[in-house]
Amino acid sequence: MTIPKIREKLQTAVDPKRFEHILGVAETAAYLGCIYGEDRERCEIAGLLHDCAKCYSHERLYELCMEAGIRLSEGLKASPQLWHAVYGPVEAESYGITDPGILDAIRYHTTGKAAMTLLEKILFVSDYIEPHREKAKDLRELRILAVNDLDKCTARIMQQTIEYLNEHGTAIDGETLEAFAYYQQYL
Amino acid sequence: MTIPKIREKLQTAVDPKRFEHILGVAETAAYLGCIYGEDRERCEIAGLLHDCAKCYSHERLYELCMEAGIRLSEGLKASPQLWHAVYGPVEAESYGITDPGILDAIRYHTTGKAAMTLLEKILFVSDYIEPHREKAKDLRELRILAVNDLDKCTARIMQQTIEYLNEHGTAIDGETLEAFAYYQQYL
Repeated sequence: MTIPKIREKLQTAVDPKRFEHILGVAETAAYLGCIYGEDRERCEIAGLLHDCAKCYSHERLYELCMEAGIRLSEGLKASPQLWHAVYGPVEAESYGITDPGILDAIRYHTTGKAAMTLLEKILFVSDYIEPHREKAKDLRELRILAVNDLDKCTARIMQQTIEYLNEHGTAIDGETLEAFAYYQQYL
Repeated sequence: MTIPKIREKLQTAVDPKRFEHILGVAETAAYLGCIYGEDRERCEIAGLLHDCAKCYSHERLYELCMEAGIRLSEGLKASPQLWHAVYGPVEAESYGITDPGILDAIRYHTTGKAAMTLLEKILFVSDYIEPHREKAKDLRELRILAVNDLDKCTARIMQQTIEYLNEHGTAIDGETLEAFAYYQQYL
């Protein structure tokens, strides 16, 4: 599916506010891709499709994971907010995307993981800093950092996410902890 | 008109490649707006509409300028590539936009001018560096510079544009020269 076709299909699949966020992530990822030497189209497609499974309820995502034969670890079972990322690569295939690098970037866009590829880092960071995002801390600083030092920006976002989850008494899944254990070297 | 409505109307008005460029400019402008403290929606609207008059031929743009009572200086008469910017604010009004700051940003997005507003600089720069732009010189460097020093980035783009026009033996309009005379202090 071409980028305009993917966009068209997405616009009917997700709610309008989510669609604005998606456009922001796609273009932010494309911009960072141009700076760090990742293919612009791959960045844009990953950005467009990162939340493509957000159109489903948690209940439905759980069912879809089971139907697709995806084994959820105990940690993931306890973290329904991650299921759209876990199921995301399967949903992205319905948009004709088979590039494993793009599918992995979608899979890890919320938690991150240790030693991410360039595309994975770009998507992880873009999701957090795209221009429609308003509620996170230090967004201005992170938006500047993203173009100057992608690894440090990745680490800072992970750190903030963990702080936020701690402050709200939310259990932190193992993927997020493992990712931060790796990226804290860049702080 | 809301941003989604503007986007929808534009998609039927301009060709597909132009539409991708427009989305890139809108989100790049929004991103820079978040960094430099300009309203995100104004940036996005200016980005979406900056080329809205590109759907007309040069001949038609000349007629439309005459019909709208826009006086073209001798310099502008000799520069048809600028007519979409000159007529742009009138066309943007057909999208329900009346904010004079946005209309001025559209008017000067190609040439720039001396002492631009923040919004004018953001649009001028975003048009040049958005992720789909491929042919200009030093794009990677300019994309990094844009988030670190907007005035210097503005000056560098003007300098490159003048160099490009000189290399190609193209006459340089007075607006571009006047703008650069001001911004070269930031080089």
